[in-house]
Amino acid sequence: VRFASDNNAGVCPEVLAAILAEAERSDAAYGWDQASARLEQRLSEVFEHPVLAVPVATGTAANALALAFTNPVWGGVLCHQDAHILVDECAAPTVLGGGLTLVGTPGPNGRLSVQGVEDALADRRDSGVHTVPVTGLSLTQSSEAGTRYPPGELAALGELARRHAMRVHMDGARFANAVAAAGTSPAELSWRAGVDVLTLGATKDGALAAEVIVVFADDLRRRGEELERLRKRSGHLLSKQRFLSAQLEAWLLDGAWLRHADHANTLAADLAQGLRSRGVEVLHPVEANMVFALLSSEQHQAAQAAGAVYYTERPRGRRAGEDRVEARLVTSWSSTMSEVDEMIRVIGSA
Amino acid sequence: VRFASDNNAGVCPEVLAAILAEAERSDAAYGWDQASARLEQRLSEVFEHPVLAVPVATGTAANALALAFTNPVWGGVLCHQDAHILVDECAAPTVLGGGLTLVGTPGPNGRLSVQGVEDALADRRDSGVHTVPVTGLSLTQSSEAGTRYPPGELAALGELARRHAMRVHMDGARFANAVAAAGTSPAELSWRAGVDVLTLGATKDGALAAEVIVVFADDLRRRGEELERLRKRSGHLLSKQRFLSAQLEAWLLDGAWLRHADHANTLAADLAQGLRSRGVEVLHPVEANMVFALLSSEQHQAAQAAGAVYYTERPRGRRAGEDRVEARLVTSWSSTMSEVDEMIRVIGSA
Amino acid sequence: VRFASDNNAGVCPEVLAAILAEAERSDAAYGWDQASARLEQRLSEVFEHPVLAVPVATGTAANALALAFTNPVWGGVLCHQDAHILVDECAAPTVLGGGLTLVGTPGPNGRLSVQGVEDALADRRDSGVHTVPVTGLSLTQSSEAGTRYPPGELAALGELARRHAMRVHMDGARFANAVAAAGTSPAELSWRAGVDVLTLGATKDGALAAEVIVVFADDLRRRGEELERLRKRSGHLLSKQRFLSAQLEAWLLDGAWLRHADHANTLAADLAQGLRSRGVEVLHPVEANMVFALLSSEQHQAAQAAGAVYYTERPRGRRAGEDRVEARLVTSWSSTMSEVDEMIRVIGSA
Amino acid sequence: VRFASDNNAGVCPEVLAAILAEAERSDAAYGWDQASARLEQRLSEVFEHPVLAVPVATGTAANALALAFTNPVWGGVLCHQDAHILVDECAAPTVLGGGLTLVGTPGPNGRLSVQGVEDALADRRDSGVHTVPVTGLSLTQSSEAGTRYPPGELAALGELARRHAMRVHMDGARFANAVAAAGTSPAELSWRAGVDVLTLGATKDGALAAEVIVVFADDLRRRGEELERLRKRSGHLLSKQRFLSAQLEAWLLDGAWLRHADHANTLAADLAQGLRSRGVEVLHPVEANMVFALLSSEQHQAAQAAGAVYYTERPRGRRAGEDRVEARLVTSWSSTMSEVDEMIRVIGSA
Repeated sequence: VRFASDNNAGVCPEVLAAILAEAERSDAAYGWDQASARLEQRLSEVFEHPVLAVPVATGTAANALALAFTNPVWGGVLCHQDAHILVDECAAPTVLGGGLTLVGTPGPNGRLSVQGVEDALADRRDSGVHTVPVTGLSLTQSSEAGTRYPPGELAALGELARRHAMRVHMDGARFANAVAAAGTSPAELSWRAGVDVLTLGATKDGALAAEVIVVFADDLRRRGEELERLRKRSGHLLSKQRFLSAQLEAWLLDGAWLRHADHANTLAADLAQGLRSRGVEVLHPVEANMVFALLSSEQHQAAQAAGAVYYTERPRGRRAGEDRVEARLVTSWSSTMSEVDEMIRVIGSA
Repeated sequence: VRFASDNNAGVCPEVLAAILAEAERSDAAYGWDQASARLEQRLSEVFEHPVLAVPVATGTAANALALAFTNPVWGGVLCHQDAHILVDECAAPTVLGGGLTLVGTPGPNGRLSVQGVEDALADRRDSGVHTVPVTGLSLTQSSEAGTRYPPGELAALGELARRHAMRVHMDGARFANAVAAAGTSPAELSWRAGVDVLTLGATKDGALAAEVIVVFADDLRRRGEELERLRKRSGHLLSKQRFLSAQLEAWLLDGAWLRHADHANTLAADLAQGLRSRGVEVLHPVEANMVFALLSSEQHQAAQAAGAVYYTERPRGRRAGEDRVEARLVTSWSSTMSEVDEMIRVIGSA
Repeated sequence: VRFASDNNAGVCPEVLAAILAEAERSDAAYGWDQASARLEQRLSEVFEHPVLAVPVATGTAANALALAFTNPVWGGVLCHQDAHILVDECAAPTVLGGGLTLVGTPGPNGRLSVQGVEDALADRRDSGVHTVPVTGLSLTQSSEAGTRYPPGELAALGELARRHAMRVHMDGARFANAVAAAGTSPAELSWRAGVDVLTLGATKDGALAAEVIVVFADDLRRRGEELERLRKRSGHLLSKQRFLSAQLEAWLLDGAWLRHADHANTLAADLAQGLRSRGVEVLHPVEANMVFALLSSEQHQAAQAAGAVYYTERPRGRRAGEDRVEARLVTSWSSTMSEVDEMIRVIGSA
Repeated sequence: VRFASDNNAGVCPEVLAAILAEAERSDAAYGWDQASARLEQRLSEVFEHPVLAVPVATGTAANALALAFTNPVWGGVLCHQDAHILVDECAAPTVLGGGLTLVGTPGPNGRLSVQGVEDALADRRDSGVHTVPVTGLSLTQSSEAGTRYPPGELAALGELARRHAMRVHMDGARFANAVAAAGTSPAELSWRAGVDVLTLGATKDGALAAEVIVVFADDLRRRGEELERLRKRSGHLLSKQRFLSAQLEAWLLDGAWLRHADHANTLAADLAQGLRSRGVEVLHPVEANMVFALLSSEQHQAAQAAGAVYYTERPRGRRAGEDRVEARLVTSWSSTMSEVDEMIRVIGSA
């Protein structure tokens, strides 16, 4: 019963088959191979838009390089105060961005709102060169709280960003889960809503290690060589780069990425429903593959005793005497209904 | 007939089997898994010394992080003027090292000598804070010219480094080839000769993508957390980090790494001998898995026409009228004797 | 009537005389001169503690280099959310600190409290290498809100910092004002309270351009060469460095620094009292040389019409219909009682 | 008898008068003052071209910021192997340039030649993203060897740079000496010859501390705000910035800068002639204010005994048994004929 993270899972069969096939072959290094040549075309089709595709092995690298590419070194990127780029990447966007600043902003359920962004911009001091100007906006889809931005909200944020000359980055470590759950096209949740560059993650959804920076904006695509140089100078160009491309290609083929994400989403919904039906408080709308549940000490101990693996946090604004823990339960492509049932049963019995 | 680079090869069976086994399992992320726990122990045995092991996916990252870890940001690292870190990593050691300086120095056959290093140090201006002080020495084993440092020469360089308070880094992208060819122990070619930190590469010798920073020096091992933070903040900690560890473990098991390297070395020796017997000038001693051959235009064109793949450089100090090209021919674990024979035949007939 | 900033003032007679005397002489460059040799001794006497003194020309450089010197590149520095280093230095501590993170925290009247710092530390996620660890604490004395930390509060913060292994930096751009107003010794407000490194500013208190990084902590003083290298590699070592030392020496001599600061403090107190007596709301305790006054539109316009020069900010948490502006009025060594009287008169009449 | 450096001198009367006048006044901080407003106009007149003027306090900052502004972080700047930016600034251009690479190249008498630059470019490996591309060319005028680039040679280098898409930076720490000696206009030695950005130094020629980045290229002037942000984020914007502008203004007024430089140049020529007439070997053409003299042990000891102050270097390519030292003798605006005579006398008598 492992709900620690979708990155605890193994490799899905489609991706594994692609790795095996590629392992038998020799091909050119550093992205001059056949799989890499095909990937950009495949992504352009999936997104219904010409794209520049720059694969890397980690989500932190994908985010940091995307932000470094779209913002000046003296710029700032507005993001949610719980954004992975701000709280879980050990300042990588600042490091690879040459001193780039991240500006955290609150918002309910892990999402920024138009009003919240406008307030944050208005609250910032503007003292000319003394102040870091906000040059970028980073949104996580699906969010760190397991919620999604609906296309309309996303488009409004994109429009706001355009008015304020902010480039829009989307952290899509779980973009697949958002697309699968939203029932809209990848295009609708990205460039059509004003996203300039997306970091599309496959690792949490079945790959061994494969993320890809997908650049939509025309002017940025023309400067693609700069992004490739940023990747190389930070050590993120693999010599056998073709194995990243091959993973991504197989993952996208015939909608495998969305099938796996849909599976994880469905189990998360089932888990949330089961917990709620046992009286457990679930913290955010469950709109992707994560459930945040407030567990009593007894429930938490029972789950631990039963071998369940998950992360907990101290609940925010915990009241005096509060002894509940906030459990983050993440389902993946390899999670099973029986794991979900077992978790509900153990918690429910405690 | 592909001699472009050992990184054009696929994945060797031992490593592939380990990936498959790991793909079926779930385990903790970010290096808290079982394979990662075993790797450090395995490396300590192989090197007969307690080590800190920090795996990453690329050799550029391994080198850059190792240098960033062992030198202050205001330091300089002396290396051969043809060193990969200097000419082929797009300044990654400078980027990840916070402004670290690389100081290239000449030396015959891709190797630094005690005399050469002493001369380089003596030639550097020393104007106190105005000058970047040399705080590190980086040696490539086997070298970019396909040669090796004999244990005695290595130990003399290590001793020299100690006298000048330089930390010793070894770029071991092809360390396996050096060990296999030298017939000495890994310890002899590393910490016993004064190497503080080794970047040990498996990718060119059969892995999909796996390099590991091996830290020997006691004081550096105690500061291991710093290296792990440097890795994370540059985006080089994989979420499914266990796949790096599993590759390395399988590669080291039962000497697989040395068998594959020995195979490549043997074919390179055969290739060099065959070319020489056809009157082709071979540029450096062939002591690992690379052959640098001076080909006439006719020979080069014939090889190309036959579909041979390899890199060429303009020969250094080319004389007027010189029309030969310098071909770099690299053999790998997956090269075959028939590829070698074919190459010799085509060149020999031209 | 100029209250825009104490950095709008000219140069005080003591400092000017020193510049003139030095201008007539030749001496060694880069700090190997006589004035620089004397400065460290002078500062050690003033602070009753051996110090390392590293002068620079700007407060931003002094702060950034002090923080870079006392924190690892992967560290974080806790500071007030209105701290100059966070909101007015365009990320300089991050840039010169190699990617150092600043963590802003709220607190009334521009001051951090023990409870506030403890809460901020408790609220931070700690996910090992994924999280930037807080390694430093920066306090501004006197603060950006014109208030002071009493010695007791300062010592408690210093003690807290020691328990959490945070190095303590004090931004002393207006340290002179704090010492003059507190009536305690410089030692009491710095190293005795746990301050490891102080950036002591003379520019706002009569110098042309002179700030000095004063290092108290024994272990840091032993590593002084590192700070000097950080200064040089960021371009902050002047060739005629002796002019910085000479300014600082003259400024400290015979208590000139405290006389000038006391003058400014007294005028600020008078200004605050005068404004309050005219019914103007003054926002923070006036404990140094700054007055934050809430002016009505009429008052603000009258002052502007009379040629008064000062900065305004949108009041925080402005209520709907609120039309008052928050005026920051800063007095300096060169401010006059007649300027203060004129300002009170103009505001009072509006 | 002080020939250590022109930065050992005091402050010339014209600059000192301007400092005194400014010290009596209050004015706006951070460059919003009257002197700063006038400076850009003055420089545009002196150079007969619209310019962007960004003053800083050190030559290292001026060079580093100018290079950071004109080159991408992943770029490289070709310069002479003895260039100040490469050997005397502790990697500041790399630090402030976000990882920028400096590429040293040899050339006789401290100068690069068209042929030398072409050879250097041809010799560099070009492996796409693996290689740092040369994006800039930096020339020192007058050079570190005390020589000058004639206008024709300069224009040819500028033309070469344009063909190779390199931006041209001129390190003009001693530009005044070059203009005074060349008898040509400042325009001829800068933008007319293809210089995009000049760091014009006043400190060595009579200022207290004042250098100014002079931007000529139209596209770069339009991006001036970026340069100002780079200056601020590295701590190089002075609060009393007007003192830098006032120094520069007074220094340029009525040709004071050229008079002082001419004085220094004349004394250097006299010194060289005197030494040569005593049989001393002078190493480079003496075309500005520096004389490099090969002194015997006896001559060196006699000069030291007489209290002469100057730097020495080990002569390059010193032969076995060679015991002469290479003395660098620098004259300044405040050097006197009697110092020159005394030096010639002492050396001549030894």
